[in-house]
Amino acid sequence: MHALIMAGGSGTRLWPCSREACPKQLLSLLSERTMLQEAWERITPLVPSNRIFVVTSKAYTDIVRQQIPQVPADNIIGESEGHGTAPCIGLSALYLKRLDPEAVMAVLTADHYIGKADEFRRTLGAAAQVAEEGHLVTLGIQPNRPATGYGYIERGEKLAHVSGHEVYRVEKFTEKPDLTTAQAFIESGRYYWNSGMFIWKVSAILREFEKLMPQFYAQLIEIDAALGTAEERAVLERIWPWVEKETIDYGIMERAEDVAVIPVDIGWSDVGSWATLFELLPTDGEGNVVVGQHIGLGTRGCLIHGSHHLVTTIGLEDMIVVDTEDALLVCPKERAQEVRDLVEKLKESGREEYL
Amino acid sequence: MHALIMAGGSGTRLWPCSREACPKQLLSLLSERTMLQEAWERITPLVPSNRIFVVTSKAYTDIVRQQIPQVPADNIIGESEGHGTAPCIGLSALYLKRLDPEAVMAVLTADHYIGKADEFRRTLGAAAQVAEEGHLVTLGIQPNRPATGYGYIERGEKLAHVSGHEVYRVEKFTEKPDLTTAQAFIESGRYYWNSGMFIWKVSAILREFEKLMPQFYAQLIEIDAALGTAEERAVLERIWPWVEKETIDYGIMERAEDVAVIPVDIGWSDVGSWATLFELLPTDGEGNVVVGQHIGLGTRGCLIHGSHHLVTTIGLEDMIVVDTEDALLVCPKERAQEVRDLVEKLKESGREEYL
Repeated sequence: MHALIMAGGSGTRLWPCSREACPKQLLSLLSERTMLQEAWERITPLVPSNRIFVVTSKAYTDIVRQQIPQVPADNIIGESEGHGTAPCIGLSALYLKRLDPEAVMAVLTADHYIGKADEFRRTLGAAAQVAEEGHLVTLGIQPNRPATGYGYIERGEKLAHVSGHEVYRVEKFTEKPDLTTAQAFIESGRYYWNSGMFIWKVSAILREFEKLMPQFYAQLIEIDAALGTAEERAVLERIWPWVEKETIDYGIMERAEDVAVIPVDIGWSDVGSWATLFELLPTDGEGNVVVGQHIGLGTRGCLIHGSHHLVTTIGLEDMIVVDTEDALLVCPKERAQEVRDLVEKLKESGREEYL
Repeated sequence: MHALIMAGGSGTRLWPCSREACPKQLLSLLSERTMLQEAWERITPLVPSNRIFVVTSKAYTDIVRQQIPQVPADNIIGESEGHGTAPCIGLSALYLKRLDPEAVMAVLTADHYIGKADEFRRTLGAAAQVAEEGHLVTLGIQPNRPATGYGYIERGEKLAHVSGHEVYRVEKFTEKPDLTTAQAFIESGRYYWNSGMFIWKVSAILREFEKLMPQFYAQLIEIDAALGTAEERAVLERIWPWVEKETIDYGIMERAEDVAVIPVDIGWSDVGSWATLFELLPTDGEGNVVVGQHIGLGTRGCLIHGSHHLVTTIGLEDMIVVDTEDALLVCPKERAQEVRDLVEKLKESGREEYL
C-alpha cells in the first residue's frame, strides 16, 4: 500500500494558534507531536516511509520535511496554489503512478484526530482488499450527533464482509445538510460522516478523473509527461494556475459509479474547533483543559490555552481563552465555530499580520 | 492652605495593571496622565507646588518625583513601612508643622477620580474656612447606591452654611456596613460615604493624636525633634518599625469630638475595581470600553484593556479582559471585586513575579 497524507489545510477555526504561516496540521495541539507527525506515525507500521507521500502548499514543504524527515524529500509534493482536494489528489496520483500504477493508495488527512490507531490500520488493511478489486473505498464515520458541518454518505446494498469489516455500496453523498435532514439521517441508521479518507488503486482513481473531470485529466496528462524531466517545474508552473477548483467529493465521489463505504469506529475527530479540542484533551479537577499557566477562581469547563502569559480567570464557565504571543481570543465554547468569522473580520480590517 | 496627597495604596483590585512595583495611583488608567499627576493638577490652582506634600511608600518616592517634578523633592515623604493612614498622616503633619503649625492642611487621595475639579476646589475653600475654626472637616460623598465597600458618615446638627456649602456636625462614623444597614443609611438621607479626604489645621490634628493616640504621639515627638537634623534618618529608622498600624478613621475620626462633614457633589469615584473603571470611561458604539486593539464579534458592555496584544472576542457580555505584558485577566464585571482574592491566590501559590 502507498499513502498520501493531505496536509494543505488552513485550520482557520483554531486561530490564533493556527496561522497562515503555520496551520493546524503543523501544530502540536493534542500531543507533543504535531498532527502531521501523528498522521505519519499512525500509518508508518503499515506503509514504509518511502511509500508515504505528503501533498501540501508549496509554502509548507520545508516545514513538512523538517517535521517528518523520515519521508523522502521527493515525496513531499508542494502545490504552488491550492485548488481543492480533487486537483491535489490527481497531481499526487501521478507521482504514485510512476512508482506503481497498480498500487493501492490510501488518501489520509493530516489534520484529524484518530483515537484508535490499531483499529484504523486494521480498517485500512480491509479497505485495501476492497480497493484491489477496483472499488473506490471511503471510510464512513458512525455519527453520534446530527452534525451539520460534515458531508454524509448513505450506504446501499452490502457488498462484502472483509476481515471483520462490513462493506457497503455507496448510495449517495450529501453535502453538509440542515439540522432536520441531519436528524433524519441519524435516525435512519444508514448514514455515515464522510471522513475525507479514501482508499483506491491509482489506476482506478485516474480512470475516474479521465471520465468525470476530463479537462483536468488532460492537464494531468501534460504534467505526467514532464514529471521527472528537466521540464517538470516549468510545465507545472504553466499549467497549475489554470486548474479549476474542485473537491474530490463533488468532482469524483458523488458521481463515480463504483464507490464503497466501510463504516469505521476509529475514535475520529476533525478537531474542527477549540470546542472540539476541549473534548479531546484531559480535564483537570475543575473540569478545565489547561495548557500553559492558569490561576482560576471558580472557573469551570473552560479551555485555557496559554503560552508565555499567565492566564487568570474568575468565574468563567464553558469559555475558551487562547493566548498566543501576539493575539488573544476569548469566546464561549458554544460559539467556537465563529472563530472563522472572526478571522474573516481580521482579513477585512487589514490585520494581515495576525492571519 | 497646604495639601498632603496620600499616594501609598496598592490598588490590588486593578491587577494585573496595578502591581506592587507600580500601583494604581502611578498608572494612567483614566487619562494620559497618571492618577497622581491628576491629583496634583487638580489641587495646584489652589495650593502652590511648594506647599504640596506627597506621602508614599519609600519604594515609590523616585517615581513620584519623576511624575510630579513640580513638587520639591523634599516634600515627597517616603515611609519605610506602611502602617495605615493614621501614622502616615501624623508623620506628614510634622513636616507641615515645620512650615507653619497653624496652616490648614488638606489630606487628599491620589487614587480616586474626581470628575468635577472646579466644584472640588470650591468645596476645599469652604472646608478650609471651617477648619480655620478648629474643626476636623471631612468631605462626605452623596451615596447613590447602598455600597457595602465604603465607610459611612452620619450627619448630626447643622453647623453652618459656608460659601454655598452646608456643614454638619458628624454624629457617627460607621465602617463598611452590611447591605441591610447600607440600605437603611441611604433611605435616611443622613449618611454620606467617607471619601478619605480631610481638612484640618495642622495644630488641630496633632492635638487629636496627642489625645487619642498618645503612644504614637510620643513617637511623633521624638521624630519631630530630629527632623531637619543629621539624626533625622537614623531616628526614623529606629522608631518607624515600632509604630502601630492604625487607620485615621478608627484612630482619630471615630473618636474625635469636633468633627464636621461637608456633603459634596464632585463626581467622585474610588476607581475601586475594573468594573468602576468601565463606568468612568467612554464606551464605543457597541457599549464596550476599549483600550488598545480589539476586534469583537457581538461583544457588548465589556471592558477590554489591552497592551501589545491584539484582543479578539466573540459574544462576550459584561466581561472584563485585561491583558498586560506578562499576565491576562478574564472576569465577569459583576465579580470584579474578587480580583483581590485572585491576587491573594497568586501570593499563596508563590507567583511573586506577578504581584
